[in-house]
Amino acid sequence: MAEILKGKPAADALNEKIVNEVNLLSKINIRPALAIVRVGSKPDDIAYERGAVKRCEKTGAAVRVITLPEDVSQNRLVEAIQKLNEDRSVHGILLLRPLPAHINDDLIRNTLAPEKDVDGITDGSLAGVFVGTDLGFPPCTPQACMEMLDYYGVEVKGKNVVVIGRSTVVGKPAAMMLTKRHGTVTICHTRTVDLPGVCRQAEILIAAAGKAKMVSKEYLSPGQIVIDVGINFTEDGSMCGDVDFDQAKEIVAAITPVPGGVGAVTTAVLVKHVVEAAKRQANV
Amino acid sequence: MAEILKGKPAADALNEKIVNEVNLLSKINIRPALAIVRVGSKPDDIAYERGAVKRCEKTGAAVRVITLPEDVSQNRLVEAIQKLNEDRSVHGILLLRPLPAHINDDLIRNTLAPEKDVDGITDGSLAGVFVGTDLGFPPCTPQACMEMLDYYGVEVKGKNVVVIGRSTVVGKPAAMMLTKRHGTVTICHTRTVDLPGVCRQAEILIAAAGKAKMVSKEYLSPGQIVIDVGINFTEDGSMCGDVDFDQAKEIVAAITPVPGGVGAVTTAVLVKHVVEAAKRQANV
Repeated sequence: MAEILKGKPAADALNEKIVNEVNLLSKINIRPALAIVRVGSKPDDIAYERGAVKRCEKTGAAVRVITLPEDVSQNRLVEAIQKLNEDRSVHGILLLRPLPAHINDDLIRNTLAPEKDVDGITDGSLAGVFVGTDLGFPPCTPQACMEMLDYYGVEVKGKNVVVIGRSTVVGKPAAMMLTKRHGTVTICHTRTVDLPGVCRQAEILIAAAGKAKMVSKEYLSPGQIVIDVGINFTEDGSMCGDVDFDQAKEIVAAITPVPGGVGAVTTAVLVKHVVEAAKRQANV
Repeated sequence: MAEILKGKPAADALNEKIVNEVNLLSKINIRPALAIVRVGSKPDDIAYERGAVKRCEKTGAAVRVITLPEDVSQNRLVEAIQKLNEDRSVHGILLLRPLPAHINDDLIRNTLAPEKDVDGITDGSLAGVFVGTDLGFPPCTPQACMEMLDYYGVEVKGKNVVVIGRSTVVGKPAAMMLTKRHGTVTICHTRTVDLPGVCRQAEILIAAAGKAKMVSKEYLSPGQIVIDVGINFTEDGSMCGDVDFDQAKEIVAAITPVPGGVGAVTTAVLVKHVVEAAKRQANV
């Protein structure tokens, strides 16, 4: 039976550090502040927003939500972001995506000031992840994977790491972060031949395919550490990951559950980035 | 005996396309122009510069070399680059690196206007490679690897590709380009455990380790396509790649030689980027 790597203790540990930092900053009259920009009212966005707001409140960071109608014009959205870029009381900006189809995503994400880009969507942040520098901030979800590995003491150096998925939001940045930590990283995707065989060779497996329970027992082997990034819903409406948890827990050494795994750490990482942004902007 | 994948025919084919484009552009009074910025007089820089100048002259592109003394101040270098950024008669800028130690490389490379960054050194270009968009230009060397694969009809899709090396100049961008072409890419480096074993499993092997003849017969297996990016010199002063060519040619299906392989294509790619930059800047 695999060890279950829950997100909550990792998130709590991060939280504690964040609260300390917020308290320290309050002594020099700085209160880290996040602005969330939401276009429309998609349930996914609202759920994530609620989590982020709660996490800010819990840690003492300020948070503000700017909502715009689903049919907002591109110019209006650009203006809203520019206003937040210029607002010195706002340290981090979270833009909920995907945006509606009539909005140019590339243009909007690069309207964001990179120094306030706490979820790693601008070219500046992505170049930082790619080059391995600390420019901007990495996307929160792959960073949450790293926090989980750190919290549970999983050494990446020299390990065979397989990442399923090559999105800019998770797969590719995770691969870069793991390479920086000296893992030997293989990036897999839908065109990979014998995906189960490649995955079985992994010592650390990061599942970010976005397909419910895709990673079944043929993908797994004893001793593996499995990080499940997937957030999917089954037909009966219950949440599940990209990994077939029931099959996996009988085979692998350790696995993150869904829900209650990586997802629980993501908003903590977000607020950590807001605090870091506040520090950088104040040069402290 | 392996097929030897020479660079010259691939470079010649590219050249022909470039000459056509240059001729077409001349009809609307545009002459693609490269500016090369060299600090000091390192033999490597001068050798590469000579190749680039020759290639420009051969294709009808304009080229200009700006030389600055080894002890140039950072401000003076920034000014020189800004002047070229603003000069509408210059379409592409090649900054020879590494720069002397007293110069902040990150600052200088991001002084370059991304639209003139024909060797992919700015964050904008690197984000383009990482995200998979056509922002800026990819670095010339990994792009030359892609040109070689294309010219020799090597299909990447679904193949196991191993990249040795994780530099921002070759290894990581090559990995991203190969992932975009639907290869299953593994990034290896000095911390990889059993590097020979990992390399033997590759169907396509990209050697960009920067270590003379490191890839010996234990790294190789029959049927492989080997792209050797290394440029090293042996004790007797002769040039060699990262692959032990004599051993490799008895085992693998095909291999690029050094000299006369990828290196021969790099300056052709550079001029191709200059032409593309001229077209983009003129909106044609």
